[in-house]
Amino acid sequence: MSFRMSMLMLALLILIGYQQVKSESDSTYNGWDLVDKAGNIRKPADFRDLYQALGVYTPVDFNNNTEMHYTYALPGTAEYYRKTGKFPDGTVLVKEVFATDHAQMTTGDAHWATSTKVWFVMIKDDKGRYPGNPLWGNGWGWALFKSDAPDKQVATDFKKDCLSCHIPAKATDWVYVQGYPVLKSQ
Amino acid sequence: MSFRMSMLMLALLILIGYQQVKSESDSTYNGWDLVDKAGNIRKPADFRDLYQALGVYTPVDFNNNTEMHYTYALPGTAEYYRKTGKFPDGTVLVKEVFATDHAQMTTGDAHWATSTKVWFVMIKDDKGRYPGNPLWGNGWGWALFKSDAPDKQVATDFKKDCLSCHIPAKATDWVYVQGYPVLKSQ
Repeated sequence: MSFRMSMLMLALLILIGYQQVKSESDSTYNGWDLVDKAGNIRKPADFRDLYQALGVYTPVDFNNNTEMHYTYALPGTAEYYRKTGKFPDGTVLVKEVFATDHAQMTTGDAHWATSTKVWFVMIKDDKGRYPGNPLWGNGWGWALFKSDAPDKQVATDFKKDCLSCHIPAKATDWVYVQGYPVLKSQ
Repeated sequence: MSFRMSMLMLALLILIGYQQVKSESDSTYNGWDLVDKAGNIRKPADFRDLYQALGVYTPVDFNNNTEMHYTYALPGTAEYYRKTGKFPDGTVLVKEVFATDHAQMTTGDAHWATSTKVWFVMIKDDKGRYPGNPLWGNGWGWALFKSDAPDKQVATDFKKDCLSCHIPAKATDWVYVQGYPVLKSQ
């Protein structure tokens, strides 16, 4: 191989390497970065900036107080779901539960999110990776973080701490997909 | 310069060129791509996937019906706003107004977005680019699209069609920033 060819090959290899690094850093379903070998789940940083919003529920509770529940997912999750009807292995969902305020505005009595109460994190696991860990089951890892200690995971058993609220969504892989416009056709 | 150096320089220039192309395609505030020379505004495609959600208002109107108003912005808008307290020139905001459904769920009477009624688009203009166009003023371009013709801009005068609903938000550059968690510190 000539010297010239060698140098062109070198340039090409550098470019290919750069592309691969870039491609990996853009990886869509990298939820496993948030999980250690024992299955402990961290809450992702900066998800309000970096994740895509799937949608919001506004429940009015039995004392007539409202909350707002924002759900975020890794970018690309919605596109994958629209194509396949499934959440891919490694999907990360973050549900941020807010207290609200409200006021009479031009469109009526408008409610909006104020301070965060808790965060729920779910990570899709198609492979049953942590059979001995009580926070993994039904195809997901489950985690809970409260605003008084935002980085401390406090759920101990997904069946006790998480599942009861998801029973109505069992048929849609435990996720309330009907309230997430981006999961439908654009 | 030696031949070896020349080739290394070539490899370097290719890499720099690639980085620049990438950087431009990631450009944060490219709202001007959506505006023609006369100031006509297009609605961005795929904003549910590609934009960041700022937040959601749930107004209850005077007939006790709810809507949900989702607001999306170009990625990077929130970070810029947190640092400066301003929306940068070229900011694109899309407000998607949804009809809702609701049901008794485990957290109460939960409301969620269903079909889109209208979209509002605002584009931040620090320079008064279209002084003769009645859809530009107060530092923004204003546009309205309805679900029966989603790509047809139908507002004719921002003072008549848009501004009245924004009067309560005059002090915050006509945007209801208090309901957008990502604009506050993370």
